[in-house]
Amino acid sequence: MTALTLDDARKGLASQPFSVLLGARVASFGNGAATLELDIREDLLQQNGYLHGGVLAYAADNAITFAAGTTLGPDVLTGGFSINYLRPAQGIRLVAEARVLHSGRRQATCRCDLHVVGRDGTTTLSAAAQGSVLTRNGPAR
Amino acid sequence: MTALTLDDARKGLASQPFSVLLGARVASFGNGAATLELDIREDLLQQNGYLHGGVLAYAADNAITFAAGTTLGPDVLTGGFSINYLRPAQGIRLVAEARVLHSGRRQATCRCDLHVVGRDGTTTLSAAAQGSVLTRNGPAR
Amino acid sequence: MTALTLDDARKGLASQPFSVLLGARVASFGNGAATLELDIREDLLQQNGYLHGGVLAYAADNAITFAAGTTLGPDVLTGGFSINYLRPAQGIRLVAEARVLHSGRRQATCRCDLHVVGRDGTTTLSAAAQGSVLTRNGPAR
Amino acid sequence: MTALTLDDARKGLASQPFSVLLGARVASFGNGAATLELDIREDLLQQNGYLHGGVLAYAADNAITFAAGTTLGPDVLTGGFSINYLRPAQGIRLVAEARVLHSGRRQATCRCDLHVVGRDGTTTLSAAAQGSVLTRNGPAR
Repeated sequence: MTALTLDDARKGLASQPFSVLLGARVASFGNGAATLELDIREDLLQQNGYLHGGVLAYAADNAITFAAGTTLGPDVLTGGFSINYLRPAQGIRLVAEARVLHSGRRQATCRCDLHVVGRDGTTTLSAAAQGSVLTRNGPAR
Repeated sequence: MTALTLDDARKGLASQPFSVLLGARVASFGNGAATLELDIREDLLQQNGYLHGGVLAYAADNAITFAAGTTLGPDVLTGGFSINYLRPAQGIRLVAEARVLHSGRRQATCRCDLHVVGRDGTTTLSAAAQGSVLTRNGPAR
Repeated sequence: MTALTLDDARKGLASQPFSVLLGARVASFGNGAATLELDIREDLLQQNGYLHGGVLAYAADNAITFAAGTTLGPDVLTGGFSINYLRPAQGIRLVAEARVLHSGRRQATCRCDLHVVGRDGTTTLSAAAQGSVLTRNGPAR
Repeated sequence: MTALTLDDARKGLASQPFSVLLGARVASFGNGAATLELDIREDLLQQNGYLHGGVLAYAADNAITFAAGTTLGPDVLTGGFSINYLRPAQGIRLVAEARVLHSGRRQATCRCDLHVVGRDGTTTLSAAAQGSVLTRNGPAR
C-alpha cells in the first residue's frame, strides 16, 4: 500500500456528496492523524442556534475514518464510534481532530476532539469521540 | 409537564435547520418511542454510493433525542451515543426507530435501530445505536 | 466451522479464571444469543451495597463475546462495547442476555440487556450494552 | 463541596468490596485526573492467558468515576462508558489513567487510557475508554 497524501484525502472527501453538502474540508492528513473542518452555517444548526449534534457526529465519524486511512489505506469501513457532547457548539468553525491510537492489520482505533472556533478566535472543546475502522477486504490484500 | 404530541414533535424538527436540510420527518412519536425518516438523496451519499455514515449518525442522535422527549419533555440535551455500522446502507429511505429503555428524573437512555428501505420494499438493519439524554434544567422543574 | 454447543460454551467459560472468580455461568447459548448469569455476592458490590458497575461491564463484555461465538466460532476477540447504566443494581442474581444483531464474515455486532433478579423474583433492567466482536484470524481461515 | 484528597480516594476504593477483590489501588488522584492500578494475577485472566477484558472494563469504569470525583465530589454515579480493546493485555500490572475532559454542574466526561506494564518495564496501551459521570443528587446540593 502506498501511503495516501493530503491531496488524495482532499479528493476522497470531494468524492463524498454529503461532505460536499456540509462544506467539509481536510485541513491536515498524515502520520496517524487527520483534521477536518467546516464552517458553521445557518443550515447546520439545531433549534437553539447551536451546531446540530448530527454535524458533530458526522465530523467525528469522518475524521476518525480519515485518520485511520493514514495507516490502513483508502479501502476502509468505519465500524462504529461513541461520542459525548460536552458543551453547546456555538461559533464560526468546527475543527475535528482525529488521531490513531493503535493500528493493527485489520483495524485501527482512533480518538477525535471536536473543537468550535468562536468569532473571537477562542477554541472550545464541544465533543469527544472514539471509534474503530476496519479494512474492507481483510488482511490478505 | 404536558406530554408532547406528534404535532409538537414535527414543529420541533421543523425548527432544526439541519434536519430541514436533510429532509428528515417525524413518522411517529409518543409513549417512549420516536421514528424519524428521510429519503436517501444523492447529496447524502458517500464515495461508494451508500448513505454516508454521518447521516446514519445524525438520524440516531436525533431519533434518540426525540424518543427521550416523549418522557422528559422538550427541554433536553443529548449526552452522547454509540453507533455500530452493520451493513452498507443502500436504498430509498432511512427509518430510525428509537425507544426509551429507562427514563429517570434527569436522564433517559434509549436505543435506536436504523433500517434502510430498498427500492423493492425490503428493510435492512444498517446500524444500531444507544445513547443517553439529559434534562436541560435539572430535576427541580 | 462446527457450531459450538452449550457444553462447549460452558467449558470455554470455565477456562477463564476471571469468570470462575466471579462465579459466572452460561445459562443459554446458541442461535445468535447467549445468556450469562452470576450470583450477586458480597464481594462483587460497590460502596453503597449495589453490584459494582465493573461486574455489569464484565458480564456485558463476556455475554456479547459468547453470543458472537455462536455465529463466528470460538476464535474471536471483542473489539469493544458501550454500556449505559440505568438503575442501581440490587438483588440476588445478574442475568446478561446478549444477542447478535448482525454477523458478517469478520465481525459480529451484539446487544446485551443486563437484568437483576431481586429477592422476590422481580427482574429489573439495570444496564444496556452494545458491542462488536472480531474473528481472530481473519476471513481466510 | 470540599475537594477530595488522595487519602479520601483510597478510603473510597477500600470501601468497594469488588475493588478489594481485584486488588485495585489508587496511584494518583486530583486536579481532574485519577490513576488506578492493579497487579495482573492468575485469577484475573481469560482463556489465552491475557488479562480478561472485564478487568480492563472494570478499571476503565472505576478510573473514570474517580477522575470525575475530583471535580464533582464523592456523590456520583457513572452514566456509562465505551471501551475499545487495542491489544491483548499481557504483563504484570494494569495502569488505568483517567482524566476529565469537561466537568459541568451535573456531569463530567472523562477519557481513560489503559496501559499494561510488562515484566521488562515496558508499557503498552491495551485499551481506551470514554465515559460520563453524573452527580447523584442533582445541581441543587
